[in-house]
Amino acid sequence: MALAQPRRNSLDRLLDPASIAIVGASDNPDKIGGRPIYYMRQQGYAGTLYPINPQRAEVQGQRAWPTLDALPAAPDLAIVAVAGEQAVQAVDRCAELGVAAAIVISAGFAETGDAGRALQDAMMARARAAGMRIVGPNSQGLANFGNGAIASFSTMFLEVAPADGPVAVLSQSGGMGAMVYGLLRQRGLGVRHVHATGNEADVTVAELACAVLRDPEVRIVLLYLESLQDAGALAEAAAMASARGVPLIAVKSGRSEAGARAAASHTGAMASEDRAVDAYFERHAILRARDPQELVRFAELALRGPLPRGPRMVAVSNSGASCVLASDAAVERGLQIAPLAETTRQQLDGLLPGFASTANPVDITAALLSNNGLFGQVLPVIASDPAADMFLIDIPVAGRGYDVATFAADTAGFAAAAARPVAVVAWQDDVAAAFRARGVAVYADEQQAADAMAALYRLHRWRSRAPVCWPDAAPFSLPSARQPFLSEAQSLALLAGQGLAVAEHARCTDADAAVAAWRAIGAPVALKACSARLPHKSEHGLVALGLDDEQALRAALARQAQTLGKLRIDDAEWIVARMHAGLHECALGVRHDPVFGPVVMVGSGGKYVEAMQDVALLLPPFSVDEVIGKLQDLRIGKLLAGVRGDPPADMRALAEQAVLLGRCALAARGSLASIDINPVLVGARGQGAVAVDALVELAAPAAP
Amino acid sequence: MALAQPRRNSLDRLLDPASIAIVGASDNPDKIGGRPIYYMRQQGYAGTLYPINPQRAEVQGQRAWPTLDALPAAPDLAIVAVAGEQAVQAVDRCAELGVAAAIVISAGFAETGDAGRALQDAMMARARAAGMRIVGPNSQGLANFGNGAIASFSTMFLEVAPADGPVAVLSQSGGMGAMVYGLLRQRGLGVRHVHATGNEADVTVAELACAVLRDPEVRIVLLYLESLQDAGALAEAAAMASARGVPLIAVKSGRSEAGARAAASHTGAMASEDRAVDAYFERHAILRARDPQELVRFAELALRGPLPRGPRMVAVSNSGASCVLASDAAVERGLQIAPLAETTRQQLDGLLPGFASTANPVDITAALLSNNGLFGQVLPVIASDPAADMFLIDIPVAGRGYDVATFAADTAGFAAAAARPVAVVAWQDDVAAAFRARGVAVYADEQQAADAMAALYRLHRWRSRAPVCWPDAAPFSLPSARQPFLSEAQSLALLAGQGLAVAEHARCTDADAAVAAWRAIGAPVALKACSARLPHKSEHGLVALGLDDEQALRAALARQAQTLGKLRIDDAEWIVARMHAGLHECALGVRHDPVFGPVVMVGSGGKYVEAMQDVALLLPPFSVDEVIGKLQDLRIGKLLAGVRGDPPADMRALAEQAVLLGRCALAARGSLASIDINPVLVGARGQGAVAVDALVELAAPAAP
Repeated sequence: MALAQPRRNSLDRLLDPASIAIVGASDNPDKIGGRPIYYMRQQGYAGTLYPINPQRAEVQGQRAWPTLDALPAAPDLAIVAVAGEQAVQAVDRCAELGVAAAIVISAGFAETGDAGRALQDAMMARARAAGMRIVGPNSQGLANFGNGAIASFSTMFLEVAPADGPVAVLSQSGGMGAMVYGLLRQRGLGVRHVHATGNEADVTVAELACAVLRDPEVRIVLLYLESLQDAGALAEAAAMASARGVPLIAVKSGRSEAGARAAASHTGAMASEDRAVDAYFERHAILRARDPQELVRFAELALRGPLPRGPRMVAVSNSGASCVLASDAAVERGLQIAPLAETTRQQLDGLLPGFASTANPVDITAALLSNNGLFGQVLPVIASDPAADMFLIDIPVAGRGYDVATFAADTAGFAAAAARPVAVVAWQDDVAAAFRARGVAVYADEQQAADAMAALYRLHRWRSRAPVCWPDAAPFSLPSARQPFLSEAQSLALLAGQGLAVAEHARCTDADAAVAAWRAIGAPVALKACSARLPHKSEHGLVALGLDDEQALRAALARQAQTLGKLRIDDAEWIVARMHAGLHECALGVRHDPVFGPVVMVGSGGKYVEAMQDVALLLPPFSVDEVIGKLQDLRIGKLLAGVRGDPPADMRALAEQAVLLGRCALAARGSLASIDINPVLVGARGQGAVAVDALVELAAPAAP
Repeated sequence: MALAQPRRNSLDRLLDPASIAIVGASDNPDKIGGRPIYYMRQQGYAGTLYPINPQRAEVQGQRAWPTLDALPAAPDLAIVAVAGEQAVQAVDRCAELGVAAAIVISAGFAETGDAGRALQDAMMARARAAGMRIVGPNSQGLANFGNGAIASFSTMFLEVAPADGPVAVLSQSGGMGAMVYGLLRQRGLGVRHVHATGNEADVTVAELACAVLRDPEVRIVLLYLESLQDAGALAEAAAMASARGVPLIAVKSGRSEAGARAAASHTGAMASEDRAVDAYFERHAILRARDPQELVRFAELALRGPLPRGPRMVAVSNSGASCVLASDAAVERGLQIAPLAETTRQQLDGLLPGFASTANPVDITAALLSNNGLFGQVLPVIASDPAADMFLIDIPVAGRGYDVATFAADTAGFAAAAARPVAVVAWQDDVAAAFRARGVAVYADEQQAADAMAALYRLHRWRSRAPVCWPDAAPFSLPSARQPFLSEAQSLALLAGQGLAVAEHARCTDADAAVAAWRAIGAPVALKACSARLPHKSEHGLVALGLDDEQALRAALARQAQTLGKLRIDDAEWIVARMHAGLHECALGVRHDPVFGPVVMVGSGGKYVEAMQDVALLLPPFSVDEVIGKLQDLRIGKLLAGVRGDPPADMRALAEQAVLLGRCALAARGSLASIDINPVLVGARGQGAVAVDALVELAAPAAP
């Protein structure tokens, strides 16, 4: 049967198997080996089921087979639901028989420690040699409600009835995947794919994301991740999702150190710095949710309408207090409560009682109680307002005397006509249910609604970015060095070679040369002793600033030479550098992240750069305008814009340096550990940005 | 009847009236004038009801009276449920008849504009002259489920059945009060008081808070405020609440500018700066919630157990992923996931399977499914751990095979034994209901639980502060001035007179005196021209720094004199001030808030003080240690602690100056608009903090 479809790759066969063997099949539908059979019969799986059970001729009414070897053909998929050594044997036998993929539900592998990891690695190696893919081990399995292939034992499908729909849920944790499914179904959203990858010995969430994105009926993909080892494949999935206009939204937990520690003990996940995770998600337009509940709230809004195309919210409520709460919530998330157009206000004035507010937010007051049609009259007027990018309909108070069913119908019609996102806030469960039944996104409070709007607007902006394509930078070879660092002179030379602006300077090895350099510069200079063995020279008093006469220069050099002698540094040279003026001290940097590769840092510089933490991270490639946007969001951004009589600073020059640095880091990929440029002196607009000090750290040589 | 209880004040009679007249009484229980009668009969109100209706002899089975004048005695309370001019007449008649208090439900007063405000003011003046209190107008009324006095027409008591309990809800907005009631009842919490003050022409939320706090069965007071005009009375209520150990929790909406604008159009509220509101709440240990939903979440935890006495959380879950989410949520709110004691871990190791995590968070894994008793075995062990200040029990996955009723019972027993706060996170409604039925606080996600824990811990810390009592500062008279500002010299003199450390300086009117002053100081000096007419002198180039020879000093003074001539400033003098050294530039300030009085500001100083917004606000009186705590929470706090080889700075000296400044502002109360001291140079520990520049702004003279 596998041979009948030679062009399908094994991941597609995993999601749409023509035949499934269940090793450890049970007649009891509540046992792990019984539940997938129960689900598949319930969901009308149309392929062939091969229950494997040496003790029974029949399992849940299906013909059973005593062993894998007894099967008439190798199945597309095998579910391994036996424990311990038996599981390993079953996986091996599947590989030998030519099974395309196995889902290993059995636990007791890498999640239990080193011995389990060795067992898993060996099993995986044999499967790989045979060309068989593995999901798990320690997986709750895969469930496809589009074709009834429910190779999962999750209890949740009993607790909350399945309904096929446009959502795919992919999770490393089986429990969280099931819970997200449950939350989606509570909100009346249909779910097609619920897949859990467990230990991810082979198949990852990222690969499955690519696979489900080939299903044209999938309109949103939701991920729960505790580790991110497969950043390349996930970037590929993100590109597919963007191309299809399918939102890709992810929880990546373990944000805090304590959380990462808990994740490490849960799945053995290795942590990238969490801000680098944010930068990665932003680069690939993957929207990040804080937790599974928020994931589902974002999904509901994304499924019910288009993404917001601007930040301007119009709020409508029958409660003045809710108008206040909605305004607070929107503004705190960077959305705008923009005034309505004058024509809109005039039309509203004709509809609403004299004491209603027809500004934004629109308070239709309790007049709604005496005129249930008011709602349906007000909404079309607002829908036509050009100042609205999104709508919040806030009905905290409804009950006796209110025709909620009509409000819901009016709102659904309004949402369709407005062709912009609409969120309803309803505090009462029955009110929420009435709106949800009409296909409107509903939230329990204004904060949640504003969060979802602001998040999807962010996703829209990320997806609207012009594509950035960096020309390949010429690869360069780093000077060989015994130390992990380059000296400042070497570091500046490297950066200058890549096109970055560095301070005017000369390298010298004695006082006469230093004096000549100062004369050539013709202005006050800094004198800095530098050696690859002294990455933090200022801590040793090896920097003298503002020297502008020969005697002082010679004296400073003599003092530094003495210090170097005491430190037994014999490879030092000196830098004589012009004292550049600048408006602000900024910083640029690169770190090589183990998962994402080079991450570029830009922000406030100076002595306190670490303590002040006023920096943004970007993943290459990025545009100059993106860097400027990041700078504007920082605290230093206000200063760079020009305050207290300062002229605006040359943010663009700084951003251009960041782009050059990113290209440099890509060109040197693998051989660089980090670059710190601090300060970068940024002048007034048009006057550029100059790297004054730099430190390049080389990657540790790869283990032999 | 009023005479029978002469000692009860009218607010108590408002909440516990012996007789109630309803002006505009209706036989229809769904009309505004009918519903209070319906509710009071339903709730068994034991006092006398006087329905007033000229058309009917009987209303809802009660004897009715044609007019107020026809009543046999003046009632304690009148509910005015007629509209427009009739309402005003009824209020006037009540006042004349000696009614103790009237609840004016009628709208059409200050909330509609200036004409309505004038109508309201006049009505209020007549009531006040007669000694009658007024609730409203534009109020939904008061409801006391302790005695059945439901002088309210809120629909919500029909939607969600009342149950008497320990909660009081006081709101300016009737709708929000009712909604908070509804949310509380959804969580199974009993509510006694639900009072709405509407336009607050007379009785305020703050006064009612004092009144309900005299009810010994009230164990928590919840407020919804859009304006805060009655800060003194609310402070009194807060003191009563603290003394009784009753949490006082408030939503103050209109946090953002757009929100404040919406609030102004809703209730005509005047806005204080929102950070001053935070400072006021902190001073009086009123916990602030973001919105009504959060208010109710905080209330549930506060009602179900003691306040957290420390920041250390222990989390227990049957899901490894929830352990990660709980850790992230806790740490992001400043809580700690502290290691369990070694003895606790040993005991847990004996109970839990090998692959369970017995660190904190404790992952009891799906082993719970095969041993439903595990939960009950694990909890007592954890309850005895000394490293836990609070507990999070996270049960995201439960259903078939789980004995949730037993988990809930075990958790309730655990909470009682632990005598520390316990929160449960349950994602499924039926699981939540099982725990809630046992009196355990339940949250929908880890974020909400951690928010509530962190908030109540904050309240505990505020209430544990040692009382601060400032001795009365000697009142001082401000120099009379035609300008709104004092000159720098006058400002520094004022501060020095109040004990603040100011830079060593002399005041001079000519060059010879300036030179003599420089010689006396014997170090480099700054020369600053100062005039009350030039509050921002540095913008005019009237500051020269680092002068240390006679010629330079004379030249600088001549240049400044020339500038003053051009500016036509003829009242200037000069300050010759020592150039003090310091580690960091900080700032101190005072603003006179229209509601709260003087608010003290402390934080980062320097040129960019406004742009950097790294300041904290405190309301007097406060302790030196409180200021230090605030400084540590700021970004400058990291620098003041000493980084990059800097010694720790003299934070205490800066904090002491802040206390002196606060006392100074209190002593000058009413005559000061603001004081800005920037920079305050803070030296290394033990070296003090010195005010280098200061600007005092005088209050505008009161309108004649």
